[in-house]
Formats: sequence, structure tokens, C-alpha cells
Amino acid sequence: MSARSKQFIMVAIPVALLIIIAGFFFFTRHNQDLAEGPVGEIAANEPRSEVWGAFYPRHWDSYQANYENSDNPSHFETKPYLKTMYAGIGFAAEYNEPRAHVYTLDDIRAIDPARKKSGAACNTCKSSQIPEMINKYGDKYYLMTFEEINQQLTEPIGCLDCHDPKTMKLRISRPALIEALERQGRDLNKISNQEMRTLVCAQCHVTYYFLPESKKLTFPWDKGVKADEILAYYDEKGFTETVHPIAGSGLVKPRHAEYETFIGSTHESAGLACADCHMPYTRVGNVKISSHDWSSPLNRIEQSCTTCHRNGVDWLRGRVEGIQKQCKETQDLAGEAILETIAELKISRETTGVNQEKLQQAMDLHRKAQWYLDYVVVTNGYGFHNPTETLNNLSKSIDYAHKSTRLAREARGLN
Amino acid sequence: MSARSKQFIMVAIPVALLIIIAGFFFFTRHNQDLAEGPVGEIAANEPRSEVWGAFYPRHWDSYQANYENSDNPSHFETKPYLKTMYAGIGFAAEYNEPRAHVYTLDDIRAIDPARKKSGAACNTCKSSQIPEMINKYGDKYYLMTFEEINQQLTEPIGCLDCHDPKTMKLRISRPALIEALERQGRDLNKISNQEMRTLVCAQCHVTYYFLPESKKLTFPWDKGVKADEILAYYDEKGFTETVHPIAGSGLVKPRHAEYETFIGSTHESAGLACADCHMPYTRVGNVKISSHDWSSPLNRIEQSCTTCHRNGVDWLRGRVEGIQKQCKETQDLAGEAILETIAELKISRETTGVNQEKLQQAMDLHRKAQWYLDYVVVTNGYGFHNPTETLNNLSKSIDYAHKSTRLAREARGLN
Repeated sequence: MSARSKQFIMVAIPVALLIIIAGFFFFTRHNQDLAEGPVGEIAANEPRSEVWGAFYPRHWDSYQANYENSDNPSHFETKPYLKTMYAGIGFAAEYNEPRAHVYTLDDIRAIDPARKKSGAACNTCKSSQIPEMINKYGDKYYLMTFEEINQQLTEPIGCLDCHDPKTMKLRISRPALIEALERQGRDLNKISNQEMRTLVCAQCHVTYYFLPESKKLTFPWDKGVKADEILAYYDEKGFTETVHPIAGSGLVKPRHAEYETFIGSTHESAGLACADCHMPYTRVGNVKISSHDWSSPLNRIEQSCTTCHRNGVDWLRGRVEGIQKQCKETQDLAGEAILETIAELKISRETTGVNQEKLQQAMDLHRKAQWYLDYVVVTNGYGFHNPTETLNNLSKSIDYAHKSTRLAREARGLN
Repeated sequence: MSARSKQFIMVAIPVALLIIIAGFFFFTRHNQDLAEGPVGEIAANEPRSEVWGAFYPRHWDSYQANYENSDNPSHFETKPYLKTMYAGIGFAAEYNEPRAHVYTLDDIRAIDPARKKSGAACNTCKSSQIPEMINKYGDKYYLMTFEEINQQLTEPIGCLDCHDPKTMKLRISRPALIEALERQGRDLNKISNQEMRTLVCAQCHVTYYFLPESKKLTFPWDKGVKADEILAYYDEKGFTETVHPIAGSGLVKPRHAEYETFIGSTHESAGLACADCHMPYTRVGNVKISSHDWSSPLNRIEQSCTTCHRNGVDWLRGRVEGIQKQCKETQDLAGEAILETIAELKISRETTGVNQEKLQQAMDLHRKAQWYLDYVVVTNGYGFHNPTETLNNLSKSIDYAHKSTRLAREARGLN
């Protein structure tokens, strides 16, 4: 071998090795997701999200970020009328803004005991272990006490609630939604992935009630998912959840109707899912994942909104906050009007010789007024999930409240 | 010359000529607008749009299309409560949906005489000849009778109202807008072309009033252009346009506040001008013009909306009509509430020994309630120019109306 050849080999071999090594790193770096893939398997009913987390470290990190979403100011601070509206039910004792999914068990355990009266079903959206419990106890689950189920729970809301552990596909784990969709005539095998990115949220972010006898958790959607349609459903069944202790009116209580409100909105009708805004794609190192720290898109307008809206973060924030301010203003008008209604109903009920028919009509109108306001108040987003529908519902609330007040006064001869 | 050279010339010359001729046609075809440019000049105050039309035949054709926009159903058919709300003013006699710009003179001449009482200024937005009239008579213009001005008019709204005849640049021809902008501290020489594409419309599509003494047409914008701010302006001045003959309340009358409503809306804050939706670019032959037949963008969603919104015509129509339906529903709640208010005020005024202080408070609330509803009703677009603000205003109307009703009843001892 010539000295020249030797020299060449001395340079060529280290260079070739360097290229191979660099190439290997480059390749694995860009295929990290595949290279890192699950080792072993996640058990079919694994409720511990940290076990899933070992297989999906980026998603796990994102899920951990939920711990930062820990503020839960009282609704009473900004909507003082709620305390009177909720008289006689647990919500009057404590009603806070929600914290993140990771706190579901902590929060329901720390909540005022007045809120735990309804029984086992109050745990349904608080833990990944619930589908297994329902499977274990069958319909008896709904008749058990709150504590009987709650003391068995260790895991808050997590991976298992929305994902199939084998395929990672989105899946519905809560019977109430499955049954509601079946009653709508939906074929659950023919639901698109995009709709599933909304429906997994609709397992919990919906309004519901407990069937009178069986206490079974049920979605009141058989006439449709809009506030009018749900109220019509309750009215037709003659269902009343609670009688207001001051006003005497038979009331129904809406709960966090995010899904129902979102349906038919501009964003939903344009083809968006909950996850598009609440779980935007986020870059983690050199890959992109759906973020798993659910919060207001206002906390990351850049990822959530600017994908479609190119008007800049400040403009977007201004739009959302402007609309939310209008909704809050209208909400407060409705709240004040209902306070008056309750006060007038109280006086009329305490008056002797009152016109019972008019008093009953006034109570029926109070039921409607409170339904429409409460429907908006308990729905996260301050109206932004569907601004015009929200304001429309609030207008009805204001109108019904004043009409109720008037009839309550007429009932005691003031006409 | 060789036979070969001759042959070459025999081919080359016709080819070169062909290229020159083809080039000429190509060039003129693509510069038709310049080539066709005005012959002679349009006079500085030329109010006859057909004279302008000779210079701009495509725009003239587009303007002619306004004749097709000739429906003007009565508002009373869909909003029967207006007849009672407008008792005592000309609007109660006749209040129709507007027809196109070309009909302004025909329509004001055919209108019920009750609507012509206010004098010369009612012609201000009906003819291109008005700036010349104001120039001629000065502030005396506003003190003249309706007929004194009207009988001099031959031209409806047209080119001169928005364009400079020499440069074709957009310009503001009506003093009321110029003065309002000056009071806002605006430098009229520093207004962008895009804002001018809104402001030329704001010469007429705004609310206004006549100053009590001079009858001068004035825009009530000194506190801002929103419904609350305009009402606050009137309240501060103690201005009342008319006293409701049944209710006794001192009222102010909003007029077609399209500009004011549009300001701060999603579309306006995103940088759009009136002309972007109402005068979309349209292909005429091989050129593109701003269409000059002003009507609802719903009549040409393709040109007006799909430039930005790629969701399809049906979706867009559904969104707009859905929002308009919600606004109409809320409008009707307010209308019914105000009918009650007027009825209760009537009874209280006819009752002896009524509590005058409460009656006056009730009338003041009626003024507010009617302001907010009327502001929405008279503004074209059924709320779509600013849906959430519209619904917000309607909520206030409902709330004020019921509060007025209650006070009116309390005033005659019903408490």
C-alpha cells in the first residue's frame, strides 16, 4: 500500500464512520416515536395514567401540566345572585370554577358535604375507574352512596377515559353517552374520528339528570340538545329536580352544557371539534402532539386560534373577551331579575288569600327563567362556545323572570 | 438580393406585422380601462349619474342593476308592535323596508305625508344635488320646508355623493359627517382609502337628529358611536325628539345605525369596510370592478363572503340566517314587553292620585327600553352587522321595558 493510500484510508475510515454515526442519530432522531414505541402492553382496564405515561412520555408531560391549572375561585364572587338562586341545593354551599382534570378526585373529596347528597353517580366523571365500577355493580351502582364508590377510587380523570389501551383510538367509556346516542339512532361504529374528538368530551361536559326511580345517570337529549329542547323534555316528563325553598317553584338544574352549547355554533358547524381548540397540536422537541392539558384556548391563542385566524393574538383576545363581557353583562341582568322574582314569590306565598292559579303560573315562569340563566352560568366559556345562542337564552331568562315577578305580584291582588 | 433573402423577407415581414398587430390587440385588451378613459371631463358638481356613466360604462351598468332591488314590504307585517311604539310620529303611518339608492327620490315623494313634517333636511340623503343646495342656502337649508328643497331635486343618490368627479377618489360630501369627525379630532386628510370605503356609507347609514333651534342635521356621536353612548349624549343634553302620546314618555328616535353598529364588530375590527361585503369585486367581461348595486351580501354570497370564508355558500347562508333568526326572536320579546309598558303607562296616566315620581321613573325607563329596541329594528341587517352587541342591546330593552311596566303599576298603588 502506498503512503498516499494509507493516508487516504486514515482519513476516509473515520469520516465514513462519522457519517454512519451521524446518519444513525439523524435517522433515530426523526423516528424517535417509532423507536420509542411501547414495550410490553397497557392492560385493558388500566386506570393509572402514569402506566400509560411510561409508553407516551410526551403526552404524559402534557397531562402533568394540568397541575398548573389549579385556580378555582368561587362563582359567587362574580355572580352573587347564584347563592339565592341555588337555595336549597348543595350548590348554594359551594360553587367554584373548575380546576383541571387531575384534580377531580381531590376536589370532590374537599367539596362541601352538601354537594355529595346525590349518591354514587356524582363520582361518574371524577375517575378513570368508573367504567369498571359500573361494569362490576351494574345498575346497582347508581343506587349506592357517594362514599361507597368514592372510597374505592384512586385515579382522577385520565387516559383510560377517552382511549382504547390497545389501539389508542378514541372511545366512549361512559354508558350515559352511549345510550343517549343510541336513542338518537346513531350507529356508534360509524362515528368519524373528528366527531370522536368532540364526543369523548361529551361524556362529561354535558347536562344530565338522574332518573327518578333508578337514579340512573341520563342525558336529557331525546328532544334535541338545545336549552329549549331539554327544558321541553323535562316539562313533558313533569320532572322537577328540586323545589326552591323560598320561591316554591319546581326547578330543573342544568350542568356544564359545553357540548350542547357548542353544537350548532359557528365553530362546530364549520367542522371543528372540542380538541381543535382545547387540545391544539403542540411541538415537543422535534415532534408534534395533541396537547393534553385542557384549559381555555385564551391561555394559548397562538396554538389554538391562529391556525385558522390570522388576525393576531391581541385581536383574537379582544374579540373573545369582548363577547364574554357582553354575555356577563346580560347574565347579570338576568340574575338581578331572578332575585326580584324569588323575593316576590316569597311574599306572595306568605300572603293569605293569594290567587293560587296565578302564583302557580308565576312559579312556572320562574322555573323557565332560572333554567335559561343557569344553563348559561354553569357552562364554561362565558358564552363563547356559542355567543348568539347564549345571549338569546339570556334574553329569554330576563323576559320570563320579569313576567314571573309580575304574576307573583298579581297573585296577591296587585292588578 | 438573393432568392433566399427575398423568400426570408416575404415570410418575415408578414410575421413581424402579425406579431405587432397581435401585440397591439393584446396590449389594448389588457389596458382597456385606460384606453377607454374619459373623453372630456365630468363637471365639478355634476349630479347626473348618467353623465358619469358615459365615462364608466361598467359601473353604470352595475348602478342600473339597483332598479331590480325594488321590494319594500312594510316593517309592520313582521313587527306589528312598531305601530304602537311609533304612535305620534310619522313612522306609525308608514315604515317600509328600504329600496335601492336609485329609488330614493321616488320613495320619499310617495311616502305618507306624515313622514315629511320634519322639513328640508329629510331630503339630505335622497339626492346627489344636496351638497350644492347646502352650499347655496347655507344653514338656512335646514330651516326650509321639505317641499322647498324637494321640488328642486331631479337626481337620486348617485356617483357625486361618494366620488370626486376629477380624480374619482372617494370623498365625503355631507357636512354632518365631516363635522362629526372633526369633533372627534380626526384629520380628514389622513383617512385611509379603506376607511373611506366605510365612511362614504356613513354619510347616510347612521343615526342623526336635528338641533333644536337651528334644525341642523347632526350626528350624536360626541360620547361615542355605541347605543349606550348615543343615549347618554341625548340624556346629557336633555334632548327629547317626541313625547309618546299614549305613554307620555319623552323619546329619542334612532335611525338606520348601520355604521355605528358595524364599528367594533368582528368584521370591522378585522379590517373590513362596508364596501368589502356590499360592493364586492365583480368580473365584467375581462375586467374587475367594485359592484355598485348595493344590497344584502346574502344575494351574492359567492362574491361577498367566499373571498374570505371557504365554508361554502349553504353554510354561510345558514350562519347568517340563523343569527338573524335569533335576533328577530329576541326583538319580538322586546317588542311585546314594550307594548305592555305602553299599556300600563296609559292606565297610570289616566288614574287619579297616581305617584308622579314613580310614573316619571317609569317613563324614563320606557325611553331607554324603546331606544334599545328601536336602535336594532331600524338598523338594516337584522342584527348581522354586530350580532352579540345587537342581542346585548335587545336584552337591555327587555329588562328596561319590564322594569318600566312594574314602576308604572306601582305608581298607581300596586305595590
